[in-house]
Amino acid sequence: MPQHSPLDLAEGDPFGPHNLPYGVFTTAAEPQRRRIGVRYGAYVLDVHALAEATGSAHAAVLSGPTLNPLLAAGRPVWKAVRAELIGAFTDPALRGTVEPLLTPLADVALHLPFEVADYVDFYASEHHATTVGQIFRPNADALTPNWKHLPIGYHGRAGTIVVSGTPVIRPTGQRKAPTDAAPVFGPSQRLDIEAEVGFVVGTPSELGQPVPLTAFADHVFGACLLNDWSARDIQAWEYVPLGPFLGKSFATSVSAWITPLDALTHAQTPPPERDVPLLPYLDDSDAAEPGGLDIHIEVALNGHVISRPPFSAMYWTAAQQLAHMTINGASLRTGDLFASGTVSGPSAEERGCLLELTWAGRDLIELPTGKRTFLEDGDEVTLTAWAPGPDGVRVGLGEVTGRITGK
Amino acid sequence: MPQHSPLDLAEGDPFGPHNLPYGVFTTAAEPQRRRIGVRYGAYVLDVHALAEATGSAHAAVLSGPTLNPLLAAGRPVWKAVRAELIGAFTDPALRGTVEPLLTPLADVALHLPFEVADYVDFYASEHHATTVGQIFRPNADALTPNWKHLPIGYHGRAGTIVVSGTPVIRPTGQRKAPTDAAPVFGPSQRLDIEAEVGFVVGTPSELGQPVPLTAFADHVFGACLLNDWSARDIQAWEYVPLGPFLGKSFATSVSAWITPLDALTHAQTPPPERDVPLLPYLDDSDAAEPGGLDIHIEVALNGHVISRPPFSAMYWTAAQQLAHMTINGASLRTGDLFASGTVSGPSAEERGCLLELTWAGRDLIELPTGKRTFLEDGDEVTLTAWAPGPDGVRVGLGEVTGRITGK
Repeated sequence: MPQHSPLDLAEGDPFGPHNLPYGVFTTAAEPQRRRIGVRYGAYVLDVHALAEATGSAHAAVLSGPTLNPLLAAGRPVWKAVRAELIGAFTDPALRGTVEPLLTPLADVALHLPFEVADYVDFYASEHHATTVGQIFRPNADALTPNWKHLPIGYHGRAGTIVVSGTPVIRPTGQRKAPTDAAPVFGPSQRLDIEAEVGFVVGTPSELGQPVPLTAFADHVFGACLLNDWSARDIQAWEYVPLGPFLGKSFATSVSAWITPLDALTHAQTPPPERDVPLLPYLDDSDAAEPGGLDIHIEVALNGHVISRPPFSAMYWTAAQQLAHMTINGASLRTGDLFASGTVSGPSAEERGCLLELTWAGRDLIELPTGKRTFLEDGDEVTLTAWAPGPDGVRVGLGEVTGRITGK
Repeated sequence: MPQHSPLDLAEGDPFGPHNLPYGVFTTAAEPQRRRIGVRYGAYVLDVHALAEATGSAHAAVLSGPTLNPLLAAGRPVWKAVRAELIGAFTDPALRGTVEPLLTPLADVALHLPFEVADYVDFYASEHHATTVGQIFRPNADALTPNWKHLPIGYHGRAGTIVVSGTPVIRPTGQRKAPTDAAPVFGPSQRLDIEAEVGFVVGTPSELGQPVPLTAFADHVFGACLLNDWSARDIQAWEYVPLGPFLGKSFATSVSAWITPLDALTHAQTPPPERDVPLLPYLDDSDAAEPGGLDIHIEVALNGHVISRPPFSAMYWTAAQQLAHMTINGASLRTGDLFASGTVSGPSAEERGCLLELTWAGRDLIELPTGKRTFLEDGDEVTLTAWAPGPDGVRVGLGEVTGRITGK
């Protein structure tokens, strides 16, 4: 019987040559040498070593410790490198070159794959915004008057974005319940998750030059999973009038793998019907490609699935978010990250945060490991996701996981 | 008569050896070679060239195109380099070494002196927050309930921070007056300034480790002037519930010169009396050094002074802002910039933005060049500032200027 090759994947493996997400890894032998890799099955390919071995014209942008040079190289280079990688995994003549450059995932450490420039978080799920509005403002309209006219967003802290697997230290801060006479200080008692999809900007833009809907794929390299950890008690006390700050800035976790946009073409899907006419810069009703993405997220708490948020239900698309973010002339930099905001679907089992799932702590989530409203120390949250690929094969979006550490 | 030397300053020059702010410059002969300089009178000293000439042990952190390596080197190095520079300008034996390394300011271009990591903007003036509250919520309490318990802040866009002199392109976006049936799209009609002081972080901190009030000077390298350009109409429509976004993110201008904290020791002054007891991490009532800074700002519009905001009137100090920003465990990076928010004093002539100065456009500012509510294309705004130095000499904080360009 011939020996099993890592190149031979089980049928339907979500990390086959149709996917090839990018990350940055080190090996135990060389823990300081960060290298760009692509995931193939349960292995990582050393991309720069392959480029050197095959004499690729793009070896230089693949040689660094982060994806930033590749991100900055622009869409034609992204397409060329991806074509070379697909070739490497599908051309029988290259098997002998590729095989020695594969390392089992179990033997590598994965790192933050790119240097984050600015981080923007949106609020693009109508279901999430509506439920949150009902929870916090039961006697008012659930959505603010601006909500269907523009994708609401705000800047978050880029310096505390961490890679999947990084422990999340429970934040300390001020909170004040309506019944408290003065604010109370201590570890957050309402530590929450937000299941999101993030988008990584490659090609920068000029100050003063908005990026139209049609230029989305020229600027955005790919997508990741993102958990925007949130301390609801800190957030509730601080956020009026200038928005979330310390309730969010202590940690934001991203998946170790960035899925190129070109691996998600089969996942394109029309966004929901819009109830309100949009200004031209946001109007995608005549777009050549539908702006939605049919990404299926699973949220697991201590190994038990507690929600399945559907990214296809998002009211605002990533292209609309990018167009809005730049309509005032704000420039993009390589490494900018913008995220969707909590992904929630219409049903109770599709809500992407504990605030919604427990109706602000009123309802318990019952797990074999115990009951929960918000997160307890030692809890581990894992987001995974997939999207439709070619020929019925799934595209895996990796995972983003984090365990809560007490102060 | 002996030739005048650039080393001989007029008495009381605010850029003497007591000041020595840092910047980054290029010369016409070498427009690509960015170099670190300190300002001395109307000249720039090439700091790396001096370090090489004198055999300084710190030449390496002064050799790059930005201040970041110096910022990252930490307070003992900041003090050592400053001592060497003061020596260079005061030791007669070094005159022959220093003089050839001086270039007239008129002959250099100044650049953004450091790579900005995260940018946070506070809202630390009680007078500003009160006036804004009175303008927008005339029937409610002017300050939100949290205002005197914590320094309210939010993250801004780091990628659109520009150096003094960079033209500011009028932003376009959505606005909606209460009387409008739907949002209107176009160039902002309420373009404003915000006169602020910014603080530049040098020494980073660890995730999960708050920076106490007492560690302020270990982490913060120096101060700059900052104009947080604001499109009030865009901001008013977008900012509920997640805070300012496109109304601010199109441009933030900073002075080309960073004044080291050690040049501001004579400017230390007690902050105003606090009306409300503070939680221990913010309580500076027993601080060894007063946290306020007696910085006198002047705001000029087209060359005419329209306001003189006193930084000494700020309710929250920069040390409190830093302590608050990190109390949740958020880490600092070299290059983080945090700003005070609009500096406004108690009187009408001390307000740091046009929103306040014109009571949201109700009152006209009369200038020899015409009447104004908000900024028109071609308008130029310049902030300058000084603080008390040793022996009655002023410390100049340089200037931050910008001219509005139409779309």
